[in-house]
Amino acid sequence: MLTRRNDILHAPAAALWNPASVAVIGASDNPNKVGGRPIHYMRRYGFGGRILPVNPQRAEVQGLPCFASLADLPEVPEAAIVAVSGDAASAAIRACADMGVRVAIVMASGFAETGEDGRALQDELVRYARAAGMRIVGPNAQGIANFASGAVLNFSTMFMEVEPRDGPIAIVSQSGAASVMPYVLLRERGLGVRYLAATGNDADLGVSDLAMSVASDESIRLILVYVESLSQPAMLAEAARIARQRGAHVVLLKGGSSTLGAAAAASHTGALAGLDAALDAFLDRHGIVRARDVHELVNAASLFVRGFPVREGRTVVMSHSGAVGVLCADAAERVGLPLAGLSAATIDALTRILPGFATAGNPLDLTASLLGNGALFSQVLDVLGNDPQADMFAIGVPVAGPGYDVPELARTAARFMAKHRKPIVITAPQRSVRAEFDACGVPTYIGETDAINALWQYARSERMRGAPPAFALPPAEADVPHGLLDEAASLSLLQRYGVPVVDHAVCADADEAAALANTFGERVVVKGCAAEIPHKSEHGLVHIGVGAGDARAAAVACLARLKSLDVGAPRIVVARMARGLHEFMLGVTVDPVLGPVVVIGEGGTLVEVRGDVVSLLAPFTADDALAAMRRLRIAPLIDGYRGQPALDADALAHAAVALGDFASAYRTSLVSVDMNPVMVMARGEGVVVVDAVVQFGERA
Amino acid sequence: MLTRRNDILHAPAAALWNPASVAVIGASDNPNKVGGRPIHYMRRYGFGGRILPVNPQRAEVQGLPCFASLADLPEVPEAAIVAVSGDAASAAIRACADMGVRVAIVMASGFAETGEDGRALQDELVRYARAAGMRIVGPNAQGIANFASGAVLNFSTMFMEVEPRDGPIAIVSQSGAASVMPYVLLRERGLGVRYLAATGNDADLGVSDLAMSVASDESIRLILVYVESLSQPAMLAEAARIARQRGAHVVLLKGGSSTLGAAAAASHTGALAGLDAALDAFLDRHGIVRARDVHELVNAASLFVRGFPVREGRTVVMSHSGAVGVLCADAAERVGLPLAGLSAATIDALTRILPGFATAGNPLDLTASLLGNGALFSQVLDVLGNDPQADMFAIGVPVAGPGYDVPELARTAARFMAKHRKPIVITAPQRSVRAEFDACGVPTYIGETDAINALWQYARSERMRGAPPAFALPPAEADVPHGLLDEAASLSLLQRYGVPVVDHAVCADADEAAALANTFGERVVVKGCAAEIPHKSEHGLVHIGVGAGDARAAAVACLARLKSLDVGAPRIVVARMARGLHEFMLGVTVDPVLGPVVVIGEGGTLVEVRGDVVSLLAPFTADDALAAMRRLRIAPLIDGYRGQPALDADALAHAAVALGDFASAYRTSLVSVDMNPVMVMARGEGVVVVDAVVQFGERA
Repeated sequence: MLTRRNDILHAPAAALWNPASVAVIGASDNPNKVGGRPIHYMRRYGFGGRILPVNPQRAEVQGLPCFASLADLPEVPEAAIVAVSGDAASAAIRACADMGVRVAIVMASGFAETGEDGRALQDELVRYARAAGMRIVGPNAQGIANFASGAVLNFSTMFMEVEPRDGPIAIVSQSGAASVMPYVLLRERGLGVRYLAATGNDADLGVSDLAMSVASDESIRLILVYVESLSQPAMLAEAARIARQRGAHVVLLKGGSSTLGAAAAASHTGALAGLDAALDAFLDRHGIVRARDVHELVNAASLFVRGFPVREGRTVVMSHSGAVGVLCADAAERVGLPLAGLSAATIDALTRILPGFATAGNPLDLTASLLGNGALFSQVLDVLGNDPQADMFAIGVPVAGPGYDVPELARTAARFMAKHRKPIVITAPQRSVRAEFDACGVPTYIGETDAINALWQYARSERMRGAPPAFALPPAEADVPHGLLDEAASLSLLQRYGVPVVDHAVCADADEAAALANTFGERVVVKGCAAEIPHKSEHGLVHIGVGAGDARAAAVACLARLKSLDVGAPRIVVARMARGLHEFMLGVTVDPVLGPVVVIGEGGTLVEVRGDVVSLLAPFTADDALAAMRRLRIAPLIDGYRGQPALDADALAHAAVALGDFASAYRTSLVSVDMNPVMVMARGEGVVVVDAVVQFGERA
Repeated sequence: MLTRRNDILHAPAAALWNPASVAVIGASDNPNKVGGRPIHYMRRYGFGGRILPVNPQRAEVQGLPCFASLADLPEVPEAAIVAVSGDAASAAIRACADMGVRVAIVMASGFAETGEDGRALQDELVRYARAAGMRIVGPNAQGIANFASGAVLNFSTMFMEVEPRDGPIAIVSQSGAASVMPYVLLRERGLGVRYLAATGNDADLGVSDLAMSVASDESIRLILVYVESLSQPAMLAEAARIARQRGAHVVLLKGGSSTLGAAAAASHTGALAGLDAALDAFLDRHGIVRARDVHELVNAASLFVRGFPVREGRTVVMSHSGAVGVLCADAAERVGLPLAGLSAATIDALTRILPGFATAGNPLDLTASLLGNGALFSQVLDVLGNDPQADMFAIGVPVAGPGYDVPELARTAARFMAKHRKPIVITAPQRSVRAEFDACGVPTYIGETDAINALWQYARSERMRGAPPAFALPPAEADVPHGLLDEAASLSLLQRYGVPVVDHAVCADADEAAALANTFGERVVVKGCAAEIPHKSEHGLVHIGVGAGDARAAAVACLARLKSLDVGAPRIVVARMARGLHEFMLGVTVDPVLGPVVVIGEGGTLVEVRGDVVSLLAPFTADDALAAMRRLRIAPLIDGYRGQPALDADALAHAAVALGDFASAYRTSLVSVDMNPVMVMARGEGVVVVDAVVQFGERA
């Protein structure tokens, strides 16, 4: 039995993307069968390796000699396609592993997608393969394709329908359909795709691995990822880091309002943050742009593959129609793309060039004088190209026809991009107009919103942190609590990590409570304390603003109420009264895949109704927290609103960081943290957490 | 001089859309000139009327006899195109009016768009024409086109580029570009357009008039409107009413984050409602769907022109790929399109039809077994067609190729629509796949979001109130205050219209204030009162929870503060303390075109930061107000939240109605109303307005 060390994920990942030889188990003479199509494709698209059909029924397949079994092969194939089904598929996978195949593309279905038995079989085969040093794509996979090498180990019909062309884009997808939908949209825009993979059940090599395997290919400018459930996020993060470091981009589409994070949604914070907040925070940190649909996944591809700098992303809109300028400006405002403020020198120069009734501004209306004066466009672009405020251009050509020299407009735009290295997008509803610009390599869009959104997505990706700071995760705590902690235990644990909690003490009898109250000032808070009752105020267990003389009575009432709720060991928390300028909340929800997410938001009893929160993947820095807080609706309060003093945002940010560090240390067992309210004082006066509930998983 | 009564806006509006004769003033032999293109188009597209070229330089134009002047014409033309410029244009307009032309399409520019002098000339020409019974489209207009009659009085080059076809759609636009952009998008989808108009400066006949002139054409199923500033809203509303009554639809795109309503934005309520809230409220009331861009303007046109019923708009998503189902469901959730819950009988029937590994649910995954079993699609559709829960269908065909009989799938979908009268949309990234469905008249989309958005927009329009109740506007008040009113005057005026205001009294000295305080209970509110100081709390003029014994001191402090602010006649308001379960706000902003808009939202000092408001065009009913309040983020409070009692939403709705009636009565002079906070009590206990500022315009 041959086994080799498997370095399949390191460049050039040849066994996966350009194997020296490919066995096709279940080879078919019919190019429309799953076992026939990859052979047809590899021959048609110039695969240089050896194709080794395996089928006991045939001597020849599609003109190639066919072998009865793997044992009959003249060599150990580097890759194998498993296109037989049922028990034959399992046997073939084991046989491949035994003989030293490095990667098997398992197209056969009937595994995890069919239920528990199928999953058990799948798990066993993966273990078997890994032990032998073989990796698996699939099972239930449409396969992979490399259109540079012709290694099309893929049974999609799409490459019969829409001719492939090598290019600077990689598509890695769990779903077969979601791998070919972006492919066809890119190809119909004239863009080439080098790598395409659909991993199916994702049992061994998943989308994160495959993203990793293409991230260091210098030719790849854009990696498109489709997932329904993200596994191996650290691998995807590393792939993104490698790609971003060399100026390439990653755009991800997640299908399904999935169960990712659903486990955490039981807590208030989890429900508040939403199922996808962890993924957003993860993508944001690692410089991965998120698309909402297949259209958005490919919409800016023409810009990504060109890779012009965008600086501040300040955009100039121009058209020979005022309405198009207006509509582009509307679209820019919706998405938050800034329009460039042109310099006085630029305005002067434009005024000299433009006819009297045109307006030198942004949007810039070239008027119909563009008709019959082709030079005007070139002159205007040259002036704008030299304005350091003008970073990107959206040019509307709503109508053309006799009198408009569209081919020359297109050549002018292309010359401008080559000279100034500033991106241009064209929006034109007429197919014939777009064709002229496409032919010159100038990105085109049917509508103004798509054009503006493409600029926005591209500028956003360009401006995202390419290489996030490496956070050292605190070591996991050895001694971990379990279940719901009561308020006193929650506050005390959080305090150890630097979370500023209210001065308080805990006791078990009313006399002691009365004595403690005297130490906390004129008025205090008296609360019943029991892990079983996390929502104290709904049970009348919170007495606020209690005079020192009334503390005993409040404590007696709390103890009685706790007893009536069958609490075994009722206790009392006595705390100093704390009032802030505004109530915030801090919380943690733990995504099963991505880990703890800290949520910062407006606090109080209406926290879920208002839903004014932001999320950060823990751990993070105080600057990260401050930047996130600026995205809250209530952000204007931070700097002082309507005569109110500014808030101590720094202290809130540091409390959030401390909470993130706590959550990271307990990441394997923590379920959620709710701290609400967090009293935020005036700048310099700090914040105080006055209530907290920490929940850990139950003891295993 | 001939003059005739002008009934141009009544069906069939023949003089405008199908004139018996058209003079072309400034006729050109060159079809690429403004004065030549309409002649070329009318001859090419089969205009049956008489074309009368006018040009002193030529005896013949494009093969037609040409006349030296209007006076030389053999008849009074019903319509005239003015394609000369400068003084000649003005002279031609006057001459047309004098001789009894019924409508002039003025293509000449150089009027209001050039400044004040141009506007004055334009106004004068419109007055002159109207006095003679002639209407004007333009000036600066691209013109109008009727592709049913061939009356193409329009100089756009677009009809040379993209062949017109008569169809069930009308486009009325201020902008020329914005008239032909939807045209080309519709034509490239294979849809026909009957009417197209670009009104330019909109000096006389505007988009509202033109919408009116096509609204009663039974062939028109969809009217698309583009405006940058809406004039004559009542005319547009009436056009929409006529169209909606016969089952046709109106979609409107407004270009520009315009100045519409900008005048009102000086008040808190105005800033809060946003510039466009009045337009949204207007469109909502009149059953007009709003599009955000040209793409959305046409996106559902294929559905609108078919006009199938949508009932609840519950949608079934199906595909032969799981990912497409997931992505369609995601898109539906984003936009709020409900997915159908299939009946048990349907699930049973589907389970019998589908192969074992497919899932009978919604989204419905037909799996690749659709390949090679064309009958499956038809069987599945038939089952669903009979399920009363399944109102509409989104079907994804992400990939096709050998083995998929796409033409038969398309025919099956078309047969289904004809039989069940339930709308289907297809989403398919491959052009060749879409072409098959298009050929069968089944609406297609490249991406899942566009397909779902089209269903959503269509269902929304279908379900909007077609014919809004006619509100009798209260008569305008004869005796109108002016400027800012102080709190006491504001409260008193609002109270007369039924707004429930807090028990209060006003006085000018501290002793009287103290006496009044005793009549309002144990604790009262003491406030300084002066029209000059609308934001009292920022000046320390609001004392809340004052004990009866302290009222005098509070009044003294207020009076002193008012004097220090140079208030001439300082007064004191003493009011009963009112506390609600939650603080709301009510306000009015007055749009200069659409009239008063009532804003309902969460109140308190953070009202603008939270921005949780809804807007209603006044007047309206309590049911309208209740429905609008359900769209607030804080709507969960209405029915009682987390153990809080339910709020008196009815009382708040009636207060809003009273405010709307007040605003309608004062609509010509009111500027804004801010009432904040409005204390809302528990259900049955009412609401109390505790502060109000009413602003009227300054005396002219």
